[in-house]
This record gives sequence, structure tokens and C-alpha cells, in this order.
Amino acid sequence: MHGHTNSLAPLLAPRSVALIGASDDPQRIGGRPLRYLREGGFAGAIYPVNPKRESVQGLRSYASVADLPEAPEVALLAVPAAGTLDAVRACAAQKVRAAIVFSAGFAEAGEAGRLLQEEMTAVARKSGMRLLGPNCLGVFNSSVAWYGTFSAILDGEFVRPGPVGIVSQSGAYGSHIAHLARQRGMGVGKWITTGNECDIDVAEALRWMVEQPDINVVIAYAEGIRNRDVFVDALETAQRMEKAIVFMKVGRSEVGAHAVSSHTAALAGSDAVFDAVLRQYGVWRARTTAEQLDVAQACARGIYPEGNRIGIFTLSGGFGIQMADDAEAAGLDVAPMPEDAQRDLKAMLPYASPRNPVDATAQALTDLPLMTSYVAAMLERGGYDFFTGIFGSGPASPSFAGRLRDVLETASRASARTIMSLTMSAPADIVRSYEDKGFIVNEDGSALMTALGALVHFRRSFDRARANPARLAAVPAVDLGSGPLSEHEAKTILSAADIPFPAEALARDGDDVGAVAAAIGFPSVIKIASPDIAHKTEIGGVAVGVKDEAAAREAGAAILARAAERRPDARIDGLLVSPMIAGGVEVIAGVSSDPTFGPVVMFGLGGIFVEVLKDVAFRVAPFDTAEAHRMIREIRGHSMLEGVRGAPAADVNALAELLSALSRFAAANAAAIASIDLNPVRVLDAGKGVVALDALIVPRAANS
Amino acid sequence: MHGHTNSLAPLLAPRSVALIGASDDPQRIGGRPLRYLREGGFAGAIYPVNPKRESVQGLRSYASVADLPEAPEVALLAVPAAGTLDAVRACAAQKVRAAIVFSAGFAEAGEAGRLLQEEMTAVARKSGMRLLGPNCLGVFNSSVAWYGTFSAILDGEFVRPGPVGIVSQSGAYGSHIAHLARQRGMGVGKWITTGNECDIDVAEALRWMVEQPDINVVIAYAEGIRNRDVFVDALETAQRMEKAIVFMKVGRSEVGAHAVSSHTAALAGSDAVFDAVLRQYGVWRARTTAEQLDVAQACARGIYPEGNRIGIFTLSGGFGIQMADDAEAAGLDVAPMPEDAQRDLKAMLPYASPRNPVDATAQALTDLPLMTSYVAAMLERGGYDFFTGIFGSGPASPSFAGRLRDVLETASRASARTIMSLTMSAPADIVRSYEDKGFIVNEDGSALMTALGALVHFRRSFDRARANPARLAAVPAVDLGSGPLSEHEAKTILSAADIPFPAEALARDGDDVGAVAAAIGFPSVIKIASPDIAHKTEIGGVAVGVKDEAAAREAGAAILARAAERRPDARIDGLLVSPMIAGGVEVIAGVSSDPTFGPVVMFGLGGIFVEVLKDVAFRVAPFDTAEAHRMIREIRGHSMLEGVRGAPAADVNALAELLSALSRFAAANAAAIASIDLNPVRVLDAGKGVVALDALIVPRAANS
Repeated sequence: MHGHTNSLAPLLAPRSVALIGASDDPQRIGGRPLRYLREGGFAGAIYPVNPKRESVQGLRSYASVADLPEAPEVALLAVPAAGTLDAVRACAAQKVRAAIVFSAGFAEAGEAGRLLQEEMTAVARKSGMRLLGPNCLGVFNSSVAWYGTFSAILDGEFVRPGPVGIVSQSGAYGSHIAHLARQRGMGVGKWITTGNECDIDVAEALRWMVEQPDINVVIAYAEGIRNRDVFVDALETAQRMEKAIVFMKVGRSEVGAHAVSSHTAALAGSDAVFDAVLRQYGVWRARTTAEQLDVAQACARGIYPEGNRIGIFTLSGGFGIQMADDAEAAGLDVAPMPEDAQRDLKAMLPYASPRNPVDATAQALTDLPLMTSYVAAMLERGGYDFFTGIFGSGPASPSFAGRLRDVLETASRASARTIMSLTMSAPADIVRSYEDKGFIVNEDGSALMTALGALVHFRRSFDRARANPARLAAVPAVDLGSGPLSEHEAKTILSAADIPFPAEALARDGDDVGAVAAAIGFPSVIKIASPDIAHKTEIGGVAVGVKDEAAAREAGAAILARAAERRPDARIDGLLVSPMIAGGVEVIAGVSSDPTFGPVVMFGLGGIFVEVLKDVAFRVAPFDTAEAHRMIREIRGHSMLEGVRGAPAADVNALAELLSALSRFAAANAAAIASIDLNPVRVLDAGKGVVALDALIVPRAANS
Repeated sequence: MHGHTNSLAPLLAPRSVALIGASDDPQRIGGRPLRYLREGGFAGAIYPVNPKRESVQGLRSYASVADLPEAPEVALLAVPAAGTLDAVRACAAQKVRAAIVFSAGFAEAGEAGRLLQEEMTAVARKSGMRLLGPNCLGVFNSSVAWYGTFSAILDGEFVRPGPVGIVSQSGAYGSHIAHLARQRGMGVGKWITTGNECDIDVAEALRWMVEQPDINVVIAYAEGIRNRDVFVDALETAQRMEKAIVFMKVGRSEVGAHAVSSHTAALAGSDAVFDAVLRQYGVWRARTTAEQLDVAQACARGIYPEGNRIGIFTLSGGFGIQMADDAEAAGLDVAPMPEDAQRDLKAMLPYASPRNPVDATAQALTDLPLMTSYVAAMLERGGYDFFTGIFGSGPASPSFAGRLRDVLETASRASARTIMSLTMSAPADIVRSYEDKGFIVNEDGSALMTALGALVHFRRSFDRARANPARLAAVPAVDLGSGPLSEHEAKTILSAADIPFPAEALARDGDDVGAVAAAIGFPSVIKIASPDIAHKTEIGGVAVGVKDEAAAREAGAAILARAAERRPDARIDGLLVSPMIAGGVEVIAGVSSDPTFGPVVMFGLGGIFVEVLKDVAFRVAPFDTAEAHRMIREIRGHSMLEGVRGAPAADVNALAELLSALSRFAAANAAAIASIDLNPVRVLDAGKGVVALDALIVPRAANS
């Protein structure tokens, strides 16, 4: 059954495996998996299939899948693309539950390959057999010694089991990051590469991965996403289950996006929207591969801090300052030690700087009891969520490393809740000996601070998921009709969806408009009302600051005349009259439809903020007001809403309500709407609400 | 002689050395340097001084400096702080040319220490002996096996000679980065740590270092700078001699800046100003220690590209995309291969992506002649300044690594001017074998792109130095008088310094103002003229858009009345009348006086750009118009000046002239001026110039 998360079990923890195209040569694609399975000690049944041989690498070989003593749970297909379809048919006929197709030469190689891939996928789908690949490097599950892969990185050395999972569209990237993780001594429990994704994609693999009890953190790589709903479900599941996802999404640059489209069949989507989705669901988007590993390593234990206070211990002022810079940049709070604790530390060593960074000077290197007292004081009295110690290349000496470890272990008993970390340069075995005691270690202090900042990020993300367990109330879809919508129609529809607009009334003609305006109140705004005129100012269809009835009649007549002259084709409903609303901060809100993620809400400040600085934030619809608040805070100019140059603070709560309401409306009407613009929206002084002054809905049909 | 750059020779390449406080224990501060010198094979004379021993580590020991057979060029002082003054006196008496003081317990340790340091410095200065330290780890010059240091990182393994120099205020940082450089296989020729800097500081050490013919790149670390002129001279020298400086300046954050002041006696200065100075002189400011090493390693050969075009070769689409993202972020141009070359590559391998990144697929791994053809085509026909190949963990296999190296070497003959680089994960000896062939290698692709981007940065910086060999024409200093200056006086002074202002005239009183305004032309602006009223709008001292003579008289009277009421103390010169100038883009320019760097020019766009976004750029005065253009382009909102929302482009050339003129005036009058504000300045349409509408000069005396 597609989309059911248990369905990856045969792929990742099979009891039996057939290797179609098994080779006696342990270096070939058809030979490597067999070698890995035997070297690793896989406990399940292994059935090599090769009609040309009696035995393969010492195991009995079978002529076909049909000849096997049982239907294997999974089949590895190490045959050329041309032979794959037959092999898939044979597996499907034997009720094999899942097949991994290694070969290239499918959709990535042109039209013929695409057709072959489609046919193969249809065969599998019909029988209920799941497919991974084609053009993938397969999977491994090191905790059960299951190696359904020919990746060369396992040649000579396996990756030890552990709480890190890897899900990668690219086999090369997946292999490389597993190799780098192994180099750092990280345990990788499960590893999935999805390749061309004819059936199982990164989204489904990710969802399965985050549900595994022995996986705490997932390293993910994708160029694009095929299934929005499964992907979002995976991210929500991870957030709810407190599993960290550290994502490398490539195609950020223009050249990169171009290369994506030439490289895979995946829909890359807009990078800004993808970025917003990751942010929305608390995923950490790594900028570099090194950062991805730094963060994953820090998350591996699945332990997150309560807050963001960090105590920095150093033997050198310069290192301490550098670390403080990095900590602040990573969003950590380098909070000072309590005054009395500072006094006590100073009494112990007058040259020390006891504030934070706490600098015990090189003196502490030769006086380890002093170091113990200092570190213990930081842990007992600092109230820190994190402790970090800066030790440079000192611990490269094994004897010092051992004594230092004892000091830190002893001192760390003073606070069980403090996450212990340190930066040092030392041989791998020494670093491991610290990691085994629960320390997060990174040779680079900046990288360490980034990783600790990520722990805070995940803690907050998980807390958000806990705070909002209920789904957003669904909003009913509305009938938008078939043609374009006038401003008045758009406002009426959006009003019903809780978007606030000023009172307004439609005057049928130029005579009527004076009385209508008088009823609305002066000064007022008069606009042409037509479903065919989207950009009213461009044809002179708007008059502002209209002061009285006579002026209203005059303005109305002029607008109608210009409309008749410049857009003789347009249907005219009349004149829309609303009160003139001044003051507040001008913002813009909108909805667009992303090919991958569907309706996406955009928010920005008006004027140069959007036009010059491109200072906008995105979220996929729907989202709640808490998420809307985060969206608002995300733009660089958000302090404009807090009151600058003596202005009062704006009603950010009302703005958040508007954005959330807009997102719920957009989600409910995703199929019908191409885009929505609310421009401008005035955010009035705090407590006075928000009001959209114009609305444009472009229905899908009208846009296509 | 202070400030003379040759004066560091006795310190870095002495013919003889005395070690005062020599110890027989090779682990102690007084023992390590001796051990290092003997183990390293220092060719000069070594004189241990220790009155309590006959011999030290097998060398004859002397009772005092006076007993030595010759005056040593340099003395290493490994005695406690309390004994240092006597040792310095003894050295000075014997005409020792330079001394390195290791001990702590001086200015960093409080008032008594500060006094001791001052006394010691005075003794040395009187005799002409140079001092390094105190509280420093000393120096080494590996090319002549000179180790004037007790740094523990040399314990067991020296750093091999090479074109990298290290200058660090912090001994701990200097040691750590030398250790990390050695780990990467980098050769470090010369190493200086300056500690408390009682005499020789980072600026002087840096200037000496960039002048050394065998040094191509300098890794520098400082918390602050003491001598602005020497520092700027060092940076200019480096730029002119095409030596790269890669700088770690700590104290970026608020906490960090606080820690700086608690840690050293150095003036940290404003980080934004320091940052601007580094940018101004083409220094690369590293954000992390790892980046500092990445960039220094790429610069070590002293070879820089002609342009920024990069060809990326990959065997995996995903890696290629990631690298293209990183390249673009680093300012490199991932330019496509020529169309015909793309066709030829496609003909060789139909599945390949031949554009750029050039993806030869995993096929090329098993078909090395194909790889050779691909790489050669990129080098022959791509016109690239950089080539980079992405090889993951493939080269971890020594046999493949050797074959790949042959492929790349063969292909690279196609273009001598292309800088060759690659990213891979392999054991150190394999990486070195590539580096020895001239490849820049980094395990992390993002780090590699940052480093290549830095090479472009340095090439441009060196070209700038070549393009502007002449110094800026000096501007004469003016007499600012002793008291505060009125707007009119400020404008008169700045006009003479080529700052353009509108025509303006002073009306003595309210009767006079009508006629004066008529002569200037309407609409006009009328402002109170008083040396005592700096902020005129705050007291209602400005009227804009004055339309005729009657209105001018009315406005003048009202302004004078308000001034009399609100600032009865102020001396009133009359009323300043100028034409109302509308249009253009509003900007702000100013000068402030940095305690370290002196007059600093600030530039920003008016309104929210400065007030909300803090979008400003700094440069130390003086600078030329080319530098002013870079300053203008540095602000985020600079596209406002290129014409947005249909506006014409603004006169950026005139703006650059103004900023340069302001900087020259500020430099010439540095001693007299506390600050200058030109706010607002209107940048008119291209070709129409720029005009400052207000000017405020705060003289130093008036400010203090």
C-alpha cells in the first residue's frame, strides 16, 4: 500500500534477499552486495540468481527467481537497464515484496529510458511490489548487518550502527556523507538512497526513517520533492517525535537550479519556498556538508537543552573572545556568572577573568585542582544549559587528555542538565574517549557553536509541536465562479474568511456616488469596480482623499470616463467607495501557488522593503498565528512594526491573525486559486487592528 | 629605531642567542627553547645563562649576560616577572639588540604589573633594545631552525618551513593555528606572537612579515591595534607586494568586545570600523579559524587568477549542483562551456551534462580516457580561471588516486593559466601527493569555493593597489577657530573643500529675509542660523517650501520667535535662506573619530535604511573615488541609486567625489574635528550632481 510507513520494512530489514545478476567478482555491482552481506554477517537467507553459474562467491546460485526455495522479501537487481524490466516482472510474479534497482539508463538518460522506467513502475505497482531506484545505490541497515548496496565506501570498512539515519536522493552524496560520518566516529544505523524515485522517494524514506526508534537524527539530501503531503507529514512526524532532521537542499543558486533541471526529473520548486517549508517545520537546513555533520553529530544523543545559556571556559583570553563571538552569532546567550561566584573565582586566582568567558589562564593547565574548582563553579552556580571548554591542541598529549577528562567528568557532576561540550585538536582515539563520556567535541570552535545553536533550534521546534497539537480548524472552500473576480467580489469572499477590510459600498454610477460616499464618510476613496480591470491605478481608476459629495461626483465621473476610454472592453460594475484610511505601517500579503508545495503565503513590508530589498518571508499554507508571528519576525525590517522614529508599535497580533486567516483560506481553496494579493495592508497602532485596502484574487482558470 | 622594518631581523634571524633563566629540564619554560634549538639544529651560538649551574642540557652555562664571550643578538627571558627588569637591564647594558620576554604578570595582571612593564619598556627604549612581549610565546623562523619560543606544539614535531607567516597577539591562538596548519601539511616559515606588546606590536610584526621574500601569505590574529599608521602601512605594503593577509579579528560580538577589554590592554576600537579598514586594504577577514586556514592554504603558492570563471567537473549531478551553489555564493562565475564544446562532449557520452557543472557521470570512473577527454576539453575550451574536480572518497583508494592524478596532470597541460583544485576525502599522504603537483585540495567543497573566491578577492585588491600608485593629494588643514561652528560657517569651510552646497544667503533679521529669499529664488528653505543650535528642527527652526516674499517674512519672524522662546541662551546670527531642492535620492554622509583609526567616513541612504536597517558603510580617511564607489556599492540598498520604481539612475560619480572630498578634508583636519554630519545629501539624477543640504561640524574642543 503506498504511503503506508511500514511498507519500507522489507527493504530495510528483510529476512531474505535475492541478488539478481549476482557476480562472482566481489568488485562488481553484482558482486559487492553479496560480499558485504557475507562479510557483515547478515543473518537472513541470501539467494544469488545467475543462470550462468552453479555457485557465486561460494553460495549456491539459482537460475531464476522462480527457482528459489521461498519468495525473498527483497530483490537486488544488478542487471543492465535493458534486462531490468524482465527481472522486475519475474520478482512481481513471485510476490517479492520490494526490489532495489541499481542500474542507470532510465529517466535520467532520455526519453527511451523514461518509458522503460514507467513500464517497470507500472508492473511493480500492479503487483504491490515496492521499488527503490532505479539509478540508486540502495540501502543499508547496519544494526542488522543488512547491506543492499554496492556503494564502494563499504569496501574494507563498515559503518558502525548508531542513532544517525541518512536519506539521500543522490547515491554519491549519500555515500560520501556516510564516509565522512564514519571518519568522525559517528554511528549510522540506517541509510537509504532513492535515485530516480520511480516509486519510493525521499519524502517517504524520510517519514519511515524518523519513525524508527533507534534513530535520533536524520541527515537528508534532496534536489527536489515529488510528494508534498508525504514530505510535510514526514517533517511533522519528526517534529512531534523529537527527531532532528538536518537537510542539504541543493539548487540554491541560479546555476545550481539550472543544473538540477538538467540532472534529475525532480521538480526543484522555488528554493525560497523550499527554504520556508524547512524553516516552518523546524528542519535545520545546512549550508555546507561539514555543517550538516557538525549538527547531526551534536543531535545524535537526542538530548536537547532547556534554554540557550552557555558558559565558556578558556585558558586563553583570545580563544574565549572568539568563542563568545561565535556563540552570540549562533543565538546563544553568553550570560555572566553570578557576581558572588565571580568574586570567589577571582579570590582563587587574581589574574583570572571570571565573568564569562571564564578565563582561568594557562595557570590552570598546571594546576588541575584549580581547573576543577573553576569548571565546577560554572556548572554549580552558572545555571548554564551548555558548558564548553576550549583546550586547543593540549589534549593531543594522551596523559594530559586523560587527566583533563577526569577533571571535566568530576566537575560535570555538579549539573546533570548542562550539555557538556569542548573544542580541541587531538587524535581520533582521544576525541572518542571524550565523546564516549557524553561530551560533544568539535575541532573547530565556530562549528561547535553552530551545532549547539542547532540544539536550541530543535528544542524550540519540538516545543512548538507540543504546544500546538491540534490541527488548524478547516475552512470551507468557496465557489469562486468561473471568470475573473472584481475587487468587490474578492473582498466579499475574503471578508467571509476573516480578512478585515474597510466598510465599502458600490455606487452604480456617477450620480449615485455622492450619496454613497456621504454614507461611508469623508475623506473617502473611490475606485473603478470591474472584474476585468486588475490594476486600477494604471488606468487612472482611483481617487483618494475625496472630501465631499461634489468632489465625489466629479471624481466618479472622471474615473468612469477614463475607464471607458482606456478599457472600452471592460465590464463596469460601478464605483467602489470606501473610507480613506491613513496611518499605521504599510505591508503586503499574498498567496502564490508553488508547483511542488501548493499555496504559499508571502509577507513583506510595503515600498522599498519588497521592491528594493526583496525582504519577504514565505510559509506554506495553512499555518497558525504563532507561525505567522515567526514569519513576521523573520523579515529584516520587522522593527518597523515595533515603532521606529517615535511611532507607536503596530498591531502585530492582528497582522498575524490576518496572515493565518489568509493561509487557511488559501489552503481550503488551493485547487481554485492561482494567486491572491492584499496590497496594501495597513497595520494600525497596537490594539487598533489591521485593514486590507485592496484585494485581488486570480482564479486558476483565469490565470491559465 | 622604532618603526624601522629591518629592526626585527635580530629577533627572527639572530646569529646568537642568550637564554636567561636556562633550565636543565627540557619541559620547563627555560628548558624548551634550548631543546628546540638543539633538536632543530640551530646554526648560531647558544648561550644558556643560569648562575646556579655549570652546564644546562649539556651546554656550558654562564652566570650572567655580562659573562658571555660576545653580546648575543637576542635574549630569551625565561625568568619570573619579578626578575625580568634586572634581566632587561643586564641585556641593555650588554647592547643585546632584542629581547623576548616570556613571563606573564605584567600589564595583564593589574596596576603593579603595568608599572613594572612600563619601567622595563623605558629601560629597553633608552638603550635601543627592542622588546617582544611580555606575556608572549615568542617567535620561530623554521627556515633557519630558529626557535625563540617555549610553545608546547613543537614538542615532538617541528613545523616545516614554507610560505605561510603567522603573526598573533595571542600566543595560544598562534600556537593552535600553527598546529592546525601543520596538520594540513602547510609549511610555516615564520611565526611571531606579540603578547602584551610593550614595544613590538602586531602591526609592526605584520609589516615585517609581508616584506619577507619567502612569505606569500600571512595568517594574522589581533584583538585590537595600537598603532594605526604602522598597521595601515603594513596593509598597504602587503597589497603592493601582492602578499595576502588572512585576518582573525575577535571581539565582533558585544560579549566578545566586553571580554577583550577585560583581557588585554589593547584598544579594541569599533569592530565595524576595524572591519572597514580590513576591507579597504583588501585583507580577507576570516569568520572562522577553519576558513582562515582554507584561504591561507589556497594563497600559499602566491598564484592568483586573472578572472573568476570556474569550471566544475563532477561524476555526480548532486555534487555538481551543490558546488555550483557554493561557487556562486563565493562570487565565482560558473560560466557554461561553449556550445560546440558541449556538443562534442555530449557526442562522447550521451548521458552526460556538458554545460557546467560538467557531469561525466560515474561512467568516467571506469573509463579514465573519457575523463581525460572531458577535463582536457574544459581546460582547452572553457576559458576557465579555475578548474575544480569533485571526487568524494574515491581517491581514498591509492591505486585509483594515482591513476586519477595522472589523468588530471595530463589534462591540465591544456591550460597553464587555470588554477587547478579539487575536493576529495583521502588519507593525508594522498592529499599531499596532489598538493605537490600544484592542486589546491580541500575535503569540503564549500570551503574550497570560499578559498577560491578569496583568490579572486586578492587579485582584485592587488590590481587596485597597482592602479592607484599615487598617494591622494593632500588637502590643507583649516583653522576651525575655538568655539562651535554655525551651519553657515560649516558650509563655508566644507565648500572650500569641494563639498557642494546649494547657494545660500544669510538674512540678518526678519525684515531682511523676504528680499534675500527673492534673490535666492522660490520655493526656498529658511533656517535659524546659530552656532549654538545644532538640531534646528527640534526647536521649530526650519521652514520649507516658502513660496513668496510675504511668506518668507512670516516664516522668518516665526522662527526667530520660537528660537528666542526655546533657546534664549543661543547667539543668533540671523536666518539662512537657500533654494528648496527636491528630487534625487536622499543619503547621509558623516565623519566620526575612531579612537584607534582616527577620522572615519560613514555613508548610508536616508530614512529607514540608516535608522531601521543600519545599512551603512565605513572607510578610514582619506580615500579616493574608486574606494568611494566600492563603499557605495557595499550598502544593501545601493540599487536605490541605480533607479528603482521607474526613477532615473542617480549621480553616483558625484556622490563618490563628495565622499572622497569629505575623507580628505577629515584626514587633513583629524586633530581638530570630532565629527561632521552632512544630512541630508541629495544625489540628483546622473550628470546633475549632488548637493548637501545641511552641514554640522563638531570641533574637538566643543565636543570634549
